[in-house]
Amino acid sequence: MKKVSVVYHSGYGHTAFIAKKVAEGITSAKNIEVQLVEVGNKSMDWEILQNSDAIVFGSPTYMGNVSAQFKAFMDESSKAWMTQSWANKLAAGFTVSGSPSGDKLNTLQALTTFALQHGMLWVGYNTLPETYGGKKPEEARNRLGSFTGLMVQASNETAEKAFYPGDIESALDFGKRIGTVLSKNIV
Amino acid sequence: MKKVSVVYHSGYGHTAFIAKKVAEGITSAKNIEVQLVEVGNKSMDWEILQNSDAIVFGSPTYMGNVSAQFKAFMDESSKAWMTQSWANKLAAGFTVSGSPSGDKLNTLQALTTFALQHGMLWVGYNTLPETYGGKKPEEARNRLGSFTGLMVQASNETAEKAFYPGDIESALDFGKRIGTVLSKNIV
Amino acid sequence: MKKVSVVYHSGYGHTAFIAKKVAEGITSAKNIEVQLVEVGNKSMDWEILQNSDAIVFGSPTYMGNVSAQFKAFMDESSKAWMTQSWANKLAAGFTVSGSPSGDKLNTLQALTTFALQHGMLWVGYNTLPETYGGKKPEEARNRLGSFTGLMVQASNETAEKAFYPGDIESALDFGKRIGTVLSKNIV
Amino acid sequence: MKKVSVVYHSGYGHTAFIAKKVAEGITSAKNIEVQLVEVGNKSMDWEILQNSDAIVFGSPTYMGNVSAQFKAFMDESSKAWMTQSWANKLAAGFTVSGSPSGDKLNTLQALTTFALQHGMLWVGYNTLPETYGGKKPEEARNRLGSFTGLMVQASNETAEKAFYPGDIESALDFGKRIGTVLSKNIV
Repeated sequence: MKKVSVVYHSGYGHTAFIAKKVAEGITSAKNIEVQLVEVGNKSMDWEILQNSDAIVFGSPTYMGNVSAQFKAFMDESSKAWMTQSWANKLAAGFTVSGSPSGDKLNTLQALTTFALQHGMLWVGYNTLPETYGGKKPEEARNRLGSFTGLMVQASNETAEKAFYPGDIESALDFGKRIGTVLSKNIV
Repeated sequence: MKKVSVVYHSGYGHTAFIAKKVAEGITSAKNIEVQLVEVGNKSMDWEILQNSDAIVFGSPTYMGNVSAQFKAFMDESSKAWMTQSWANKLAAGFTVSGSPSGDKLNTLQALTTFALQHGMLWVGYNTLPETYGGKKPEEARNRLGSFTGLMVQASNETAEKAFYPGDIESALDFGKRIGTVLSKNIV
Repeated sequence: MKKVSVVYHSGYGHTAFIAKKVAEGITSAKNIEVQLVEVGNKSMDWEILQNSDAIVFGSPTYMGNVSAQFKAFMDESSKAWMTQSWANKLAAGFTVSGSPSGDKLNTLQALTTFALQHGMLWVGYNTLPETYGGKKPEEARNRLGSFTGLMVQASNETAEKAFYPGDIESALDFGKRIGTVLSKNIV
Repeated sequence: MKKVSVVYHSGYGHTAFIAKKVAEGITSAKNIEVQLVEVGNKSMDWEILQNSDAIVFGSPTYMGNVSAQFKAFMDESSKAWMTQSWANKLAAGFTVSGSPSGDKLNTLQALTTFALQHGMLWVGYNTLPETYGGKKPEEARNRLGSFTGLMVQASNETAEKAFYPGDIESALDFGKRIGTVLSKNIV
């Protein structure tokens, strides 16, 4: 049984919604247990992270970067960094914002830079945009064309109504990829 | 009369098409002369660039970065870099690829890093996505949500048919912004 | 008389020390007034920023990015972003950390991405590393080789003893460049 | 027996020198075979790459990015990208330039963006700067403080004389890390 934590911050519930879909996708791989860990009011449960084989990081993109709340989590992790206690865990990341690009790549690069400081191994998202094969954007996985991690676009609606079906499928698909890499001892 | 060069590489004509639209937008500002300079078979006309008040850089995004052809131009510019002879010129950038994100931000960051090595001043694109106000994506300016520079999505069709009307409007709009900043002596 | 704000966060006084040197450099240009604005306990004085012709952003690099405290300032600035009320102001940035590279470029890219979302014009640092001409690293300006903005390395000592003389000279030099660009109406 | 390719471009022999040291470090792990593959005049041997369990990418940093020659290799790899035939291979990267920072992080980010498009898993460099423990910079591993991959500083001397002993040790150390991750089936 391998353990995965999905650590995320969510301002209005959209990133939380996607975090759950990613988690659901991860559990579709065999022998994997997933924990959702929300960054917020309660103090962080560092032990869950320490006991995980993989940590997936999720944040909304605010002003072209992770949210301040998520950054506070990143800064507090410097204790783990000093002892490199997360080294060789698998890492992945996702981000949510209101426009198709919206500088979300900068957020994903912030997450890779961070995870690589921790000595983690980074797995991205490698489903080619299904729009290339003619699928309608609304229904296509990875329609935005993001590889460093998962990008999702949210409208102003509440989380249940804010996403294209294809973006939700992408979240499940991305989770499945993480789970598969972890369960197969790839590398 | 101020002078602007638009230096671009185009693999299949799509980036060339957008370069022309950007140039057209620039000339909508007063007292500005624009030169299109294609990176390619002919040797680069460095004097045109040296005599420009602003240089706009354009490249397709190939494998998440500027094209090799455009990179060759960048590498050859190291002579100008050593004497900082482009210092204080205005700079801007745009890129074209097949999906909405497609890691195009990494290309724009390559261009900013490059221009700032040359001591240039960087102007981005600051029209807020018109989709926020309810415009249909196909017709909205900056629908992709890019600020470091202009991002345009191209389909596999030939250049005339490859773009959404909104993306073409964005190219004109982005050019106009460059022209306005230059002609008003902003800063 | 032109106005410049230097907005910074400082965890242990090192970034504050450099902020002062940058401010000192800026005032070496003519007819420029500089305000230091610290991100922290007191509520931000947005009016000072709104009334500035240029805003210089400074943050330590924590975990390869701006500090959480500085990110909170960035996130709060989204009101100014929505009205693009900082558009066409000049922007620049600097960062401080313990090693020569230390992923500081990622922090500077976070600042450029942010400033370009605000429609600001970005000025970098273009003094070529004086080590190229044979100067000793300890005394050379821009010895680290940073162009997107200023990078400074700090030791664990208190701020007064934490910096190489060359890095302090770089901060003054970088400030002077910002002041010169602003006072000359370059662009 | 696992196979690793080290693909690199070298303008003046410095990156080639480091590539050899990285390769030497990799072979210090058990049951690993390393191939050096130079990007250049001869046509690329794509089959060696296809048959590798890990591919390490190395390029000088020219104008803040991979060299044009290395970018040409990246662009040609788009055939492998379309079939995702490199997916789940291990990837890592290194870069060489004349100053401590020198925007080398942008080159490493270009390499991560590229490798993640190919669906590879990225391993960085996680030896904490030995200068933190009091070692002299000249002799310290990871003195530059780089984690996304290896950064090495080269002087203008020929390759044999161009590097600090600590940077050469870093190259061996970085190679060893890649080899260890690969041979231990970590993840």
